[in-house]
Amino acid sequence: MRMYDIIRKKRDGDALSAEEIRFFTEGIVDGSIPDYQAAALCMAIYLNGMNREEIAQLTFAIRDSGERLDLSAISGIRADKHSTGGVGDKTSLVVAPAVASFGIKVAKVSGRGLAHTGGTVDKLESIPGFRTNLSDSEFIDCVNNVGAAIIGQTRDVAPADKKLYALRDVTATVDTLPLIVSSIMGKKLAADDDIIILDVKCGSGSFNKTPQISRELAQCMVDIGKKAGKKMLALITDMDRPLGCAIGNALEVIEAIETMKGRGPEDFTRLCEVLISNTLYLAGKGSRQDCDDMAKASLSDGSALEKFREMIIAQGGDPLVIDDYDRFGKAKYSHAVLAPKSAYISSVNAEGYGEASLILGAGRNTMEESIDPCAGIILKKNTGDFVKEGEEIAVLYSEDKEKFADSEKKLLSSTCFSSEAPKKKPLILDMVE
Amino acid sequence: MRMYDIIRKKRDGDALSAEEIRFFTEGIVDGSIPDYQAAALCMAIYLNGMNREEIAQLTFAIRDSGERLDLSAISGIRADKHSTGGVGDKTSLVVAPAVASFGIKVAKVSGRGLAHTGGTVDKLESIPGFRTNLSDSEFIDCVNNVGAAIIGQTRDVAPADKKLYALRDVTATVDTLPLIVSSIMGKKLAADDDIIILDVKCGSGSFNKTPQISRELAQCMVDIGKKAGKKMLALITDMDRPLGCAIGNALEVIEAIETMKGRGPEDFTRLCEVLISNTLYLAGKGSRQDCDDMAKASLSDGSALEKFREMIIAQGGDPLVIDDYDRFGKAKYSHAVLAPKSAYISSVNAEGYGEASLILGAGRNTMEESIDPCAGIILKKNTGDFVKEGEEIAVLYSEDKEKFADSEKKLLSSTCFSSEAPKKKPLILDMVE
Repeated sequence: MRMYDIIRKKRDGDALSAEEIRFFTEGIVDGSIPDYQAAALCMAIYLNGMNREEIAQLTFAIRDSGERLDLSAISGIRADKHSTGGVGDKTSLVVAPAVASFGIKVAKVSGRGLAHTGGTVDKLESIPGFRTNLSDSEFIDCVNNVGAAIIGQTRDVAPADKKLYALRDVTATVDTLPLIVSSIMGKKLAADDDIIILDVKCGSGSFNKTPQISRELAQCMVDIGKKAGKKMLALITDMDRPLGCAIGNALEVIEAIETMKGRGPEDFTRLCEVLISNTLYLAGKGSRQDCDDMAKASLSDGSALEKFREMIIAQGGDPLVIDDYDRFGKAKYSHAVLAPKSAYISSVNAEGYGEASLILGAGRNTMEESIDPCAGIILKKNTGDFVKEGEEIAVLYSEDKEKFADSEKKLLSSTCFSSEAPKKKPLILDMVE
Repeated sequence: MRMYDIIRKKRDGDALSAEEIRFFTEGIVDGSIPDYQAAALCMAIYLNGMNREEIAQLTFAIRDSGERLDLSAISGIRADKHSTGGVGDKTSLVVAPAVASFGIKVAKVSGRGLAHTGGTVDKLESIPGFRTNLSDSEFIDCVNNVGAAIIGQTRDVAPADKKLYALRDVTATVDTLPLIVSSIMGKKLAADDDIIILDVKCGSGSFNKTPQISRELAQCMVDIGKKAGKKMLALITDMDRPLGCAIGNALEVIEAIETMKGRGPEDFTRLCEVLISNTLYLAGKGSRQDCDDMAKASLSDGSALEKFREMIIAQGGDPLVIDDYDRFGKAKYSHAVLAPKSAYISSVNAEGYGEASLILGAGRNTMEESIDPCAGIILKKNTGDFVKEGEEIAVLYSEDKEKFADSEKKLLSSTCFSSEAPKKKPLILDMVE
């Protein structure tokens, strides 16, 4: 088999076989296929597409390209959720303990934040003492004893995806369904859960510009997951606004705790409920209505919060943060961003808000940088709200007050004002199963 | 300017500007653009094409990417011809002296053979003493005094093409009009002649499968040449058969000499006449009919041969070879290839014949290998001929008789036999100007 012939085949619009796709993923991992050939194939895939069978085979080849954690020692049904990226998205912090409170196991391996996107591992590490670097046996024990654990990635999971993504990123071949689906699902399937709930963000800045494209993407991922024997469901959610009011690590954990105390922001609470409810439904816990009622109850009756407390204790964190937010520490400086005029906020570029938070110290530009757990933004207004000139839109938090000017500028330039009220969009646009 | 944006633009089917194209060619030459980005752009060009203006700009950028020989010291009109590749194509050996015999200057820089294709420089070097490595001033003196000189490439002409071609070769992006045209014309225009005659080969094995594609290719090259101020004309010729009867260096020079003695094979003689005639016509030497008569006369009255003799003397070769072919030396062994059955030769894969000759020692697989000037093939039969079982099809010549089995096998597997006479195709299929 020659890479040249594989490129030519895709160039001519023909479908690649499972063997050809594996030859490709194995070759990029072991270095026998040079980057320029891989880049040419990515562009041919971008322009000529892949059929469903090819996408599934590429997904499985990526899944199988690296090390996988053996979770067979975990008893019971295992569930996970995955979001295609969002700003202020702290749903995992709520969904994992809530789902675990119903006896479903959550053995979650999460990432760190990079550029404008936050990472669940960084958020959890804002809890004093919280360890995300558990050994395999500690991780499995935590999941078996508590029901949920969240750790950082240590294994070389799906290295084919890592190499491929780095190449796509510099050759303008990121935004194409076959490569997006195989990248996300290849990594997700490597974790070997029984239930996977996907949160597919839909918004102007991304590949998933329209609900239609998002539906197609979601359906493709759901079908491949099912083909791999998983119970699958995908929500399509609006990403043209940050989720909830908090952006930044400790600030988001606090918002998650507030949500588990039944006092969370309406949009964020509802998204958590739907994610929890659908996980319960796929796990066979009852009818859709029953599951929705159970999901709501878990956030209002304290059961999710209780499970979160157990998680914190099991992973070495300080559980007192739940009742005393001061234990997170506090940013030295804060700064209020005021409305420059009286108008409706007609739309918000969530990515820009993520960057504003990054500037404050809440994120990192490269994986080597450290982050400030207490930096970030609390939004006082969001898309659809009317603001009066001089009214607070947001409060910025940082250890370095020099950062406020740049961050404020970024935040305001990411906010559209209009004299007319924008059309209300629901947060959850569709569901695919 | 960023290469990423250039890739994205072409990926989305938009036209690149002259500045973007030059950014690309300069970047691949100075190494600032990595191969994987260049490969992605090549595939995007392959699949989304380029408009005429883009192709012209890419051609000019390739032309300008390297060193150019200053030919301003040569007086008079300068003409050159270029063939898109053929087997047994020794037209330059005849056309250069013939054209020079009419006072048109030919300052030709030629290549060496690689793989199945022969090279004019290798052919000339089979003449004992012939020097193809003249200095710039020697070269210019030869052209001014004799009218024609042919040397090998020493300069780094069009390095952008060299890098690009190496990359296209391994990423399945060779066969696409914009990159073929800019590669050929970029190099040709770097030589700075007044008249360029193109011989565009049309045949089953190549990009130019059909006369229609060949016409499109030819027209595009002619238009770009005219845009650069050249007088242009292209012939479209059949490449589904070797040209003439001789393949191999000394064997081809002998056939060229025979042709200049008025005893050449019919097809080869006619192609030379047409190439000479059209060069004379573009140089304003008379009407088409006049020029055709002059071209024919130059081969039958000995004037082209006389000029060839002057060329050999000027470049240090032994002019006595013209009347005594033994002075070329002789291959130690010969071997007759016999017809395996009685049938028509319905078609011939010229490339396969080139490989059969390469096996005998007449060519090289890598630029480091040396070649045997006397090795090669004399065809006794060609496409359209009827052969009886056991009749000679060809005679192979080599210093190593062990090579005959492989070469014969390649030659026979490149010959199609049929019980029916094939439809006669003219050698010259079309002309574009």
